[in-house]
Amino acid sequence: MPPFSRVTVIGLGLIGSSIARGIRARMPDVCVTGYDASAEVRDTARAIDLCDTVADSAGASVAEADLVVLCVPVGAMGAAAAEIAGDLPAGAIVSDVGSCKQAVATALREALSEAVIVPAHPVAGTEQSGPESGFASLFHGRWCILTPPEGTDPAAIDRVADFWRRLGAEIEQMAPDHHDRVLAITSHLPHLIAYTIVGTASDLEEVTQSEVVKYSAGGFRDFTRIAASDPTMWRDVFLTNREAVLEMLQRFSEDLTALQRAIRWGKGDELFDLFTRTRAIRRGIVEQGQDDAKPDFGRTHE
Amino acid sequence: MPPFSRVTVIGLGLIGSSIARGIRARMPDVCVTGYDASAEVRDTARAIDLCDTVADSAGASVAEADLVVLCVPVGAMGAAAAEIAGDLPAGAIVSDVGSCKQAVATALREALSEAVIVPAHPVAGTEQSGPESGFASLFHGRWCILTPPEGTDPAAIDRVADFWRRLGAEIEQMAPDHHDRVLAITSHLPHLIAYTIVGTASDLEEVTQSEVVKYSAGGFRDFTRIAASDPTMWRDVFLTNREAVLEMLQRFSEDLTALQRAIRWGKGDELFDLFTRTRAIRRGIVEQGQDDAKPDFGRTHE
Repeated sequence: MPPFSRVTVIGLGLIGSSIARGIRARMPDVCVTGYDASAEVRDTARAIDLCDTVADSAGASVAEADLVVLCVPVGAMGAAAAEIAGDLPAGAIVSDVGSCKQAVATALREALSEAVIVPAHPVAGTEQSGPESGFASLFHGRWCILTPPEGTDPAAIDRVADFWRRLGAEIEQMAPDHHDRVLAITSHLPHLIAYTIVGTASDLEEVTQSEVVKYSAGGFRDFTRIAASDPTMWRDVFLTNREAVLEMLQRFSEDLTALQRAIRWGKGDELFDLFTRTRAIRRGIVEQGQDDAKPDFGRTHE
Repeated sequence: MPPFSRVTVIGLGLIGSSIARGIRARMPDVCVTGYDASAEVRDTARAIDLCDTVADSAGASVAEADLVVLCVPVGAMGAAAAEIAGDLPAGAIVSDVGSCKQAVATALREALSEAVIVPAHPVAGTEQSGPESGFASLFHGRWCILTPPEGTDPAAIDRVADFWRRLGAEIEQMAPDHHDRVLAITSHLPHLIAYTIVGTASDLEEVTQSEVVKYSAGGFRDFTRIAASDPTMWRDVFLTNREAVLEMLQRFSEDLTALQRAIRWGKGDELFDLFTRTRAIRRGIVEQGQDDAKPDFGRTHE
């Protein structure tokens, strides 16, 4: 038996629509209701038959739910929670998929003082956005981190964990502040750096954008993928997980300065040592199934 | 008719072995001779039947060639050229595949004062190394930049261009110093940043390497691919293209500092504007066939 029978997904972007599709594929008896603040997104969701029902208000969407998953940008979580507060059935569990857990937990608790809240973060995604970009297998083999506050009903945690396992994810539990530091280095800083270098490249005077595009296979194109991610989502992440991001950024800048100095002074051994050390991490990622084992991410080479 | 009948490839790593395979696949009448400074690599090349002949010395490998392509790390180009100087037939064309063109051109000219030299750089690769990692289609749809010095025989340039077109590449011609600045931003700086962030992540105390690996699908794993590239090759690139790399790095650092400030002061509009602007470059790259149009680089999602 699935752990929930009526799931509401609020926010029908990449993650929300992938959850809806995952439920359809893996828990066909579960009734899925969707809602999105954008009327256009609701229309698209109906046109592609994403959910059993797409409601026209947040309140109506949760009225019969036993699980509500908030899939909106982290800066909009508090407002989304406030919108459902009056209609949330007693006993329903509220979860979310936000990339920052401390601030979101506080916002959800303030808006929903009585609800059972089990915050979650599935570490998965693509660079695409919107209800048509989701797919049922997005969470397969990926980790979903639960960050329940102390004192959360263990049965509620188990049900949310069971839900994510059925979507194909593996489960880890973590304190919210530790989550925010781990994700600052494994997700937030990489995005920040990718956005920066793509900006730097597009601002050069003597190298044209056309040249940047043509010769991007030298490495640059890898960065453009995550720099094409949703701007609202990522603005909110950086503003919300500010302290941890700034700390990781400081460490990165120090390391970059050290490398800059090694290049300026011709210290080839320092470069070689670092470049040798970094190969091990890639091997670990591939061995643990967190990336494609094929060269070049499995890109098509015809 | 292929533009050459006897091609020698010196350095049988990813690029050299891909050229050998490409010749076999696309120019079957051309005789390919290979040489590598490593006896182990020569043995492997023989075992996998990479070339028609694998010679046991650089000199012997070029004795009957009409094209010699040097595929060694840029720091080893001068020595490799010096090794063949005494055996190079009159009229043979020498080319290379180095990622830095100014310094390599100087080194080749010094070692081979009489030869016809047409430097080239195919902007293609994967994170893998060695003779078994190459494949015939590596250059399909990628750009190969020729940087012949002024006064180079146009017929020689045409023959080298024809050779690369037959391997599937598109041809561009560029001044060596401009090449080095373009590649500093589209290839060298991305690698430097990727190596740095992977180093930063592996040095953290409170976030374990195991956590970095597990949650790498949040974005970090993208950087680990190019940070798994050949350490010798990349050490040489940074030491050789030092000035251009340091300049691009300076620009990147300034832009990163501006973003850091925007995060610290909560300037969401600045972040949003940059994150919106960077999407256009990704679109250009995909539209021009320089990356996979499928989400997530076409990674397998089962």
